[in-house]
Amino acid sequence: MEHQLKFIGTIHSALKTLEDCPLLENENAPEAVVEIFDDFADGIKNIKTGVEIILFTWLHRADRTVLKTKPRNNPDALMTGVFSTRSPDRPNPIGIHFVKVISVLPGNKLQVGGLEVLDQTPLIDIKPDLKR
Amino acid sequence: MEHQLKFIGTIHSALKTLEDCPLLENENAPEAVVEIFDDFADGIKNIKTGVEIILFTWLHRADRTVLKTKPRNNPDALMTGVFSTRSPDRPNPIGIHFVKVISVLPGNKLQVGGLEVLDQTPLIDIKPDLKR
Repeated sequence: MEHQLKFIGTIHSALKTLEDCPLLENENAPEAVVEIFDDFADGIKNIKTGVEIILFTWLHRADRTVLKTKPRNNPDALMTGVFSTRSPDRPNPIGIHFVKVISVLPGNKLQVGGLEVLDQTPLIDIKPDLKR
Repeated sequence: MEHQLKFIGTIHSALKTLEDCPLLENENAPEAVVEIFDDFADGIKNIKTGVEIILFTWLHRADRTVLKTKPRNNPDALMTGVFSTRSPDRPNPIGIHFVKVISVLPGNKLQVGGLEVLDQTPLIDIKPDLKR
């Protein structure tokens, strides 16, 4: 299908369960390693240590039927449309993560700063972080 | 499929051809109207005039086989891995657009500031723009 996602890589992280995960990347998330699959490795040839990038992940454990949720899992919060939240539960569970490349490792791998996603989360895109 | 995208809406824009499109949203892109399909309308109930949002589009005219390109269509540029560029030609042609909601219109529509995508581009997600 024309709008079937291709998984271009995977995340290797110490975060093994959803309970381990911080809610946002600025909340003490650990470093992680981003592995790019061989078929897509040409796409990262210009990514160097120190650059700021945006990772796009596919939050594969999410519930894609949810349209309203309570932000930050707070039971006292009002039900809120998911498009006003960063909840992974949404029709297309795309995760967006602003991270710094700490080092470029052999085997098409990038070590990156604080990343709040589960180990084995699929990667779908990387873009340069153009400061606004 | 589990990683089949759902189109949640569509963009209505004065940009009718690729030649009309600025390269980035800060390059004099026009206002546009984002229409959310009825099935997903509950998700935007909390989006109000004035808020800053991130639109995720599916750049359906892109070439998904491209891994290296010349940035900004500059023939003098060096070939660059697509993950270091904002080129729409990439394995998953996800567009990311930081815009302001100018008004909330009847019929699950949002009028937004400068948006550099073609008329009829599919919408796949909306997130709040949490300033960093």
